[in-house]
Amino acid sequence: MATRTRTPKARGGIDLGGTKIQAVVVDGRSKVLGEARRPTPTSGGPADVAAQMGEALREAAQAAGVEPSALAGVGVGSPGEVNARTGTVSQAKNLPGWAGEFELGNWVHSELGPEVRVGNDVQVATEAEFHLGAGRPYRSLIGVFWGTGVGGGIVLDGQPWLGRGTAGEIGHTVVKLGGAPCPCGRRGCLEAYAGRSAMEAKARREHEDGRKTDLFKLAKKHGRDRLTSGIWERALEKQDALAIELFDRAVEALGAGIASAINLIDVEAVIIGGGIGVRMGKRYAKRIERAMGPHLFDDDNPPAVRVASLGDLGGAIGASLLVKR
Amino acid sequence: MATRTRTPKARGGIDLGGTKIQAVVVDGRSKVLGEARRPTPTSGGPADVAAQMGEALREAAQAAGVEPSALAGVGVGSPGEVNARTGTVSQAKNLPGWAGEFELGNWVHSELGPEVRVGNDVQVATEAEFHLGAGRPYRSLIGVFWGTGVGGGIVLDGQPWLGRGTAGEIGHTVVKLGGAPCPCGRRGCLEAYAGRSAMEAKARREHEDGRKTDLFKLAKKHGRDRLTSGIWERALEKQDALAIELFDRAVEALGAGIASAINLIDVEAVIIGGGIGVRMGKRYAKRIERAMGPHLFDDDNPPAVRVASLGDLGGAIGASLLVKR
Repeated sequence: MATRTRTPKARGGIDLGGTKIQAVVVDGRSKVLGEARRPTPTSGGPADVAAQMGEALREAAQAAGVEPSALAGVGVGSPGEVNARTGTVSQAKNLPGWAGEFELGNWVHSELGPEVRVGNDVQVATEAEFHLGAGRPYRSLIGVFWGTGVGGGIVLDGQPWLGRGTAGEIGHTVVKLGGAPCPCGRRGCLEAYAGRSAMEAKARREHEDGRKTDLFKLAKKHGRDRLTSGIWERALEKQDALAIELFDRAVEALGAGIASAINLIDVEAVIIGGGIGVRMGKRYAKRIERAMGPHLFDDDNPPAVRVASLGDLGGAIGASLLVKR
Repeated sequence: MATRTRTPKARGGIDLGGTKIQAVVVDGRSKVLGEARRPTPTSGGPADVAAQMGEALREAAQAAGVEPSALAGVGVGSPGEVNARTGTVSQAKNLPGWAGEFELGNWVHSELGPEVRVGNDVQVATEAEFHLGAGRPYRSLIGVFWGTGVGGGIVLDGQPWLGRGTAGEIGHTVVKLGGAPCPCGRRGCLEAYAGRSAMEAKARREHEDGRKTDLFKLAKKHGRDRLTSGIWERALEKQDALAIELFDRAVEALGAGIASAINLIDVEAVIIGGGIGVRMGKRYAKRIERAMGPHLFDDDNPPAVRVASLGDLGGAIGASLLVKR
């Protein structure tokens, strides 16, 4: 009967980001067999985005030596508001022409063939860290993804907690009533202090007001039209005063916002991921942990603070977990 | 075999507050059969507190026509850090002589006889509202108890969420980095703006600095040495400018702190209880709901905001639910 035992099928995972699309093909144990990356289209509309996602996954499947049609399914981690049941996505403000609701699951399905499941990008990355990464020792945790924005995902007693569908928005914790403007249009959110977009906007305002900084010179030198995590890192290494000040401010806000979340849900661990979080690594996780200290209600029993260990591929691997194994 | 069917036994519940001890005896359906109230001792130590708790429960049992020894058990809702397994309580800073850890469960047990179970006061009040009060229509909710301090309790998918034991501390959400001093010793917590203690301290400072207010005159007139919820209500009715200003500030902070909690855990409902919350009722729940609006991430889908419906007895009834039915 050996012919009837079957290797668990490979699965696909696609992380749809504002700047890049990351695709992986993994085996039954979530080991990455192939990967590919493409830039997210900056013009056009959802159909163009779905086409690029199809391309990225086909490339990852080729690298893995697997036909896309042979995959057990494809998971997609998407920004915006995701309806997991229908595979539709709305409010994905960083994606081109995405004003309304869009059947992302169906489009990617018709691009590729296998069944497609869609989840929130940050939630699936949190679940990847929980099952396979830095969160493995814990039963309950919060993932904090520090990048262009500040996103979050929650696992409670081993299960994802989605609330009514949009839980985990730790970036929109109010850390300062009437405070700094946030890209979301509100004021005083954690993201208004720690998100890369908001930090760049603040740096630009300060620079235009005559504040000295090498941030924009460094960006130009490295051919960037925005202040990437790498540019910030270089500026910090060069002791750029404005970069240091804005990162101090970001760490302070992260400390307060994450401590407030711990005071509310009291989970065992905080996993720091995202473009900036992973790049800045342990040293900054330690700084965030120290910044949380003064705000923790049960300060004798602080949560563990760890850096996400799956790196850049965590989102795509997490998306692949949406496919039932 | 009719003689073998047995009426479910009555249960006891005690809510241990900073100013009063409220006891109830309820039947198998949690209907209140008898109640009694005693002031919390302001001197002495935990043994004196336990003795008063015993007195209050005996009085409630007498009113119910039940022998304390016939109760199926007694539940206690206590402030501070509660170890539900051992029935010990520590960090109950509002109680006299309660610096260390104290075996509250064992003491009340030896006062009364029946098995005693101890839980967090605010959590059991939240569960009472969930099972029997304003929270009945919902599966997931947060209770916000607005009184001397600001406490919270969480129910997710029908189950209490305690985290590692101290979840629900919404009063210590940081709503303003570097903001007002909080009775907890930190700065900028929600409770620093909305807790009765913190509001009284602020009113006193402003008054001493020459600000005009009738708050302290009203307290004196009604024989109060502190600004009770009733005194605040009278001052608001009389359009006292300082009282209005401090309540506006409290509502703004509650809006930001509760909205931040919703952004994180996205539950269906917020139940507003506590001494001030219940007294101020629907009108203030509406004001808090409006103050949340600008900070809600998913503002198309706000949670329901309701006033706790079990009133003053909610904490004691919730405590009685700790006894297995």
